[in-house]
Amino acid sequence: MGTSKLADFLHFDPMDGSIPDRTPVRRYLRDLSSSFADQAACRARLQENPLLYQVTSIEDHTGTGQLHYGLGVLMPGKIGREYFMTKGHFHAWRPAAEVYIGLRGRGLMILEDERTGECRVVPLEANTVVYVPGWTAHRTVNIGEEPLVYWGIFSSEAGHDYGAIGKRNFRIVVVEKDNQPTIMDRSAFLQELGAQSS
Amino acid sequence: MGTSKLADFLHFDPMDGSIPDRTPVRRYLRDLSSSFADQAACRARLQENPLLYQVTSIEDHTGTGQLHYGLGVLMPGKIGREYFMTKGHFHAWRPAAEVYIGLRGRGLMILEDERTGECRVVPLEANTVVYVPGWTAHRTVNIGEEPLVYWGIFSSEAGHDYGAIGKRNFRIVVVEKDNQPTIMDRSAFLQELGAQSS
Repeated sequence: MGTSKLADFLHFDPMDGSIPDRTPVRRYLRDLSSSFADQAACRARLQENPLLYQVTSIEDHTGTGQLHYGLGVLMPGKIGREYFMTKGHFHAWRPAAEVYIGLRGRGLMILEDERTGECRVVPLEANTVVYVPGWTAHRTVNIGEEPLVYWGIFSSEAGHDYGAIGKRNFRIVVVEKDNQPTIMDRSAFLQELGAQSS
Repeated sequence: MGTSKLADFLHFDPMDGSIPDRTPVRRYLRDLSSSFADQAACRARLQENPLLYQVTSIEDHTGTGQLHYGLGVLMPGKIGREYFMTKGHFHAWRPAAEVYIGLRGRGLMILEDERTGECRVVPLEANTVVYVPGWTAHRTVNIGEEPLVYWGIFSSEAGHDYGAIGKRNFRIVVVEKDNQPTIMDRSAFLQELGAQSS
């Protein structure tokens, strides 16, 4: 059985999130040093500089109507009590949505609507699909013991804006509390950290 | 652990392609009676009218930048020597691409570019992603022994045009030959059928 011409398909490994012959972008703790709430815990790990996540982006087609897609792998772990997470971003073209398809692991997505200020947290895990509407900053968090592997698919015109949400950070954090992943307001978590260190 | 508000996520079953609380559209042989090359073999199965495939479409968000997505399940089987397949379509908005993500099974996609006339066949199977560019009619074929389960993601503005490719049908067929899935020109396959029946 032959194919008439080499065409647009790729094999991927849903366990380790690799795609043969494609190079992922890797983000280490140093790339997200300002993202974690517990800055003392962060500084204590900077020497080690653990890998937090990688994304293999497929952006072969560009232009009206075309799609980009990426296979993400978010490692398990914590900085202090805060779970490993992605930097998080808006789309530069604000109306652009994104569909996430969970392949492996157990995670959450933090969604923050720029227009309403509303924060939501939704599960992203194996066999779950998450819809990120336009105008919504989104960050992925691994609350499990194994890598969180997922596809993200979005308009080729979406682009990434890390700056807007990077400056103020997300209003909520996902941290370990009483041995459970717990959603807290960042301000409340920072107060807890302050009370502990004083 | 709670979430601040019910939001956009769905669980799905990658084995049977179901999504709780969502209703699939089902296509039976009668819905595709003109699609299969061997019309005598088709007529012989019309009474039985087997289920060929189902698609559970998620079209909750509409408008610029938004995405629609659907979970497809294509059953194993053949009509005569031609494998079970979908009706196939262009997008009404021709530039719209589609990303397919294979979850289970073993299949092929037939792609036919409206602008160049070029035909291509690519594998769609578990752990494979297929990119269908704009202006390209696409049909899924199950060449395996189990259901072929896959996600398709596309612009909410894409729309479906079944008519244009339905009238002339795809130029190539996927049929069993010497116990193998084989890609043939439709015209050559029709000649074989004619030679057998005369």
